[in-house]
Amino acid sequence: MLATPVGAFGVLAKTIAPHLKPGAIVTDVGSVKGAVIADVSPHIPKGVHFIPAHPIAGTERSGPDAGFAELFDGRWCILTPLKGTNQRALKTLRTFWEQLGSKVDVMDAKHHDLVLAVTSHVPHLIAYNIVGTADDLSAVTEGEVIKYSAGGFRDFTRIAASDPTMWRDVFLNNKEAVLEVLGRFSEDLSALQRQIRWGDGDSLFKLFTRTRDIRRGVIDAGQDSAEVNFGRNVAVKKSKRRPR
Amino acid sequence: MLATPVGAFGVLAKTIAPHLKPGAIVTDVGSVKGAVIADVSPHIPKGVHFIPAHPIAGTERSGPDAGFAELFDGRWCILTPLKGTNQRALKTLRTFWEQLGSKVDVMDAKHHDLVLAVTSHVPHLIAYNIVGTADDLSAVTEGEVIKYSAGGFRDFTRIAASDPTMWRDVFLNNKEAVLEVLGRFSEDLSALQRQIRWGDGDSLFKLFTRTRDIRRGVIDAGQDSAEVNFGRNVAVKKSKRRPR
Repeated sequence: MLATPVGAFGVLAKTIAPHLKPGAIVTDVGSVKGAVIADVSPHIPKGVHFIPAHPIAGTERSGPDAGFAELFDGRWCILTPLKGTNQRALKTLRTFWEQLGSKVDVMDAKHHDLVLAVTSHVPHLIAYNIVGTADDLSAVTEGEVIKYSAGGFRDFTRIAASDPTMWRDVFLNNKEAVLEVLGRFSEDLSALQRQIRWGDGDSLFKLFTRTRDIRRGVIDAGQDSAEVNFGRNVAVKKSKRRPR
Repeated sequence: MLATPVGAFGVLAKTIAPHLKPGAIVTDVGSVKGAVIADVSPHIPKGVHFIPAHPIAGTERSGPDAGFAELFDGRWCILTPLKGTNQRALKTLRTFWEQLGSKVDVMDAKHHDLVLAVTSHVPHLIAYNIVGTADDLSAVTEGEVIKYSAGGFRDFTRIAASDPTMWRDVFLNNKEAVLEVLGRFSEDLSALQRQIRWGDGDSLFKLFTRTRDIRRGVIDAGQDSAEVNFGRNVAVKKSKRRPR
């Protein structure tokens, strides 16, 4: 979830390029890889290794103060080396991230951008969107939206509190993949809308059951805790809940 | 977020009706109020007070074991009395919820159903939908969706792990308000889609900034904690994060 404005990346690359020693490794931690490659690659001198990276870790806060010691523990870092990348340099970067606590995967930039569009970019977009829709609904006051947010909405406000500059840049720089996933999301939502309108409870039930398996997978993979969270962990821990 | 299948409510009301003493108060805790009123009211004997209620509290788990002592602390409970409801009975029910730790609001059922459509029902629907879309995306494997879920997606899987039976019934019984809010959501999402396609960063930035104010409101109203959550509270607490 960390990103840097991509326009700034090209300027930065151009500025540091004359000072890069042969054999140096240049990397980044941006959320979008295709645009960074297009922007930075032309400025990288011969003999310097440019290997884009994206650690899938972070919180709704940004900037240096938002870091903490365990930020990368058990989280995935994706490296998207270009064709013909020096294998020793790749191994060095992999070790770097592993020593920070990350697990490392390697894939091409185009696939990364599609995977992230579905696991991060579009989820953020729809969170921003529902909060905006709620804010605009004149029949419901802002006070009401806030007071009754514990029914699910508050989790979306948390996501929609992420850094506006960073997310604007993510959407502008991963346009193709975001629009592709968004198109599918809208198509699927239209189907749900129709099922609700026509009272097709069986189809709704089928989807709502299938999504539970994915949740189980996320917990089994150690990417989230099974601890209940809508009631917020603190409240639950205080009580004597029977374990399930 | 608690609900009971509304069809079952009518049957239940019909069954208990002959045994209700005059002066008794009948209430419920369903997520949708209009449909419950239509279903239950005809069976309530004269002299018995039917006052629908909806506590906006709960977690992604359901059933008696999902309860905990602080479940209702500081959460809102909405009462939706019918026209001509006995004021003393209303006061009794209000006191009941207040003694459980709730704050109590009174509004008409139609308004309740619209407010909840936007703060709870549609957020759940879009969470279910994005998890389904991700699962169907053949170019991205289920394993990838799960591994890289820490970028935002995992919060949606948590919501989409809610009880399928309950949520099917919520959507079927609050059809009108859900379709109204969903229509607006889709319209707004189309605008965002267009802004991304045409590179309108200013409009994106404007929305992403506005949504932060709502988040601040939710925290100020005590409906969520400001503690960062994407990194999951436990990891953050272990580190020596500077307070902000």
